[in-house]
Amino acid sequence: MSFGTVAILGPGLIGGSLALALAERGLTDKLVIWGRNNKSFSAIREKLPQAILTLDIIEAVRDADIVVLCVPIETMKDLVEKFANSLKPTALVTDVGSVKESVDCEIAPLLAGKALWIGSHPMAGSEKSGFSAARNDLFVGAAIVITPNYNTPVAIIERTSQFWISVGGRVSEFEPLYHDLVVAEISHLPHLVAAILAYKTTDEARKLAGIELNYTPDQALKIAGGGFRDTTRIASGSPELWTEILMANRTAIARHLRALAIVFTNVSGCLDTNDATGLHEILKAARDARAKLPEINSSFKK
Amino acid sequence: MSFGTVAILGPGLIGGSLALALAERGLTDKLVIWGRNNKSFSAIREKLPQAILTLDIIEAVRDADIVVLCVPIETMKDLVEKFANSLKPTALVTDVGSVKESVDCEIAPLLAGKALWIGSHPMAGSEKSGFSAARNDLFVGAAIVITPNYNTPVAIIERTSQFWISVGGRVSEFEPLYHDLVVAEISHLPHLVAAILAYKTTDEARKLAGIELNYTPDQALKIAGGGFRDTTRIASGSPELWTEILMANRTAIARHLRALAIVFTNVSGCLDTNDATGLHEILKAARDARAKLPEINSSFKK
Repeated sequence: MSFGTVAILGPGLIGGSLALALAERGLTDKLVIWGRNNKSFSAIREKLPQAILTLDIIEAVRDADIVVLCVPIETMKDLVEKFANSLKPTALVTDVGSVKESVDCEIAPLLAGKALWIGSHPMAGSEKSGFSAARNDLFVGAAIVITPNYNTPVAIIERTSQFWISVGGRVSEFEPLYHDLVVAEISHLPHLVAAILAYKTTDEARKLAGIELNYTPDQALKIAGGGFRDTTRIASGSPELWTEILMANRTAIARHLRALAIVFTNVSGCLDTNDATGLHEILKAARDARAKLPEINSSFKK
Repeated sequence: MSFGTVAILGPGLIGGSLALALAERGLTDKLVIWGRNNKSFSAIREKLPQAILTLDIIEAVRDADIVVLCVPIETMKDLVEKFANSLKPTALVTDVGSVKESVDCEIAPLLAGKALWIGSHPMAGSEKSGFSAARNDLFVGAAIVITPNYNTPVAIIERTSQFWISVGGRVSEFEPLYHDLVVAEISHLPHLVAAILAYKTTDEARKLAGIELNYTPDQALKIAGGGFRDTTRIASGSPELWTEILMANRTAIARHLRALAIVFTNVSGCLDTNDATGLHEILKAARDARAKLPEINSSFKK
């Protein structure tokens, strides 16, 4: 199978991994990579000698059958405006942004009548970033959400699904707005919670919370076991990238945070009233919910 | 180095792993394992042919130089009462319970004048339990907290440190009460938070929180990536075991939960008021705090 000419715009962790995966599996006739600058071009050339690297956005997209926007969300609109008129009318344009309603509202009108548009969100980040962190198996077993809107032809949904499945993804479909809600719950909320747990150990947070403790943050972190380590792992992610992601989806996240606060209060209540039965019920339901997570094949992903 | 005769009371995950580690490193003259029943004895015999297995608690401790209580916290007192008068006066008794103030208050008086006592807490659990989950490298790189009280001779602190270091642990010292506070923050709070995040996805939690969502819990879990997976990993732990642990330390945990709620409110505020700078500061401080976690050598532990 080949997807023809594929243009990856932005060779960071996601774009770079996508390029590596497409190349390794022989899924393109031509692979074009556009970068804002040529900083990582020599590293890319080493791993992908067959790819065409360019700084010219028009050259990058002109012959493309599939264009994948792998740039930061806030730069997408400007970029698409630059190349919208240079696309083949049959070109499929998608992205990898982690919020979708705002992206869809911005990009869909720019491409209407000029090419075919559908949003994508591969749930395959990492606490690392940049092409140096890219891996050809990043999408193996990863959930990929594609976000057709009311306007998206079925054929486009199918082609996009095929594209992501062909690099190893498990594809789900949500409307853009519903995507933002479910991702707020399953990705953004965990990120916030992990960050809050790690932040909670700092002197700054102690002051904020008005809690005085007779041990230092360093003494606490020194005894942290696998539980703290795992639960806070994603707090090591880029603060810049995650501020952008969380702010972009802040309405949906806020809704879940309010729900989370109620659950927290309930659990606190179990502790305060020595309600072991109530706590046990929650821990059991939590374990059962987690047991429903799909098996992941890749040995890399935990 | 040898610690003489070591008696492990309770061959579960922790006791079993300790027995395996001691045997593998040749750290005992004699290794005695006591069980409440002989259910796992054949599995133990296979891996530890040199160990003496017994159901007789007096026989188990009589010659012991070191006795390690690896039984559930609520059964410790009864067990110690049974054997306290049969110990050598030079015997060192310690435990592996995950709360320490209550254990210390119960066990110290029972052993006063009869043997030497100090609490221990190896921070090396797992979501698995039982001897079948035991591993000889469970303590490699793991934090071990020992909890001398105002009465504990320095020589005992040193001998206990040596013991845990010899199986690969990194030893810290806290008074029992302070142990409970720091462990509430660094182990119990992450556990609760992981459970709450997983529980939050259930229909039950939605009802509790009064949130209606247009996707099912299964649809949400299907798209979960590594972030949700890691952040909730410890929620797979035994609900029974963790109800017991959390309830035993509920006062200390409640104090941290209140502080956590304040931090949560602060973060919600950043989202509500579109305060990207404030959120960025917190994410940065969280990342920096996590970067202070000690390196872990064992390839097993993440």
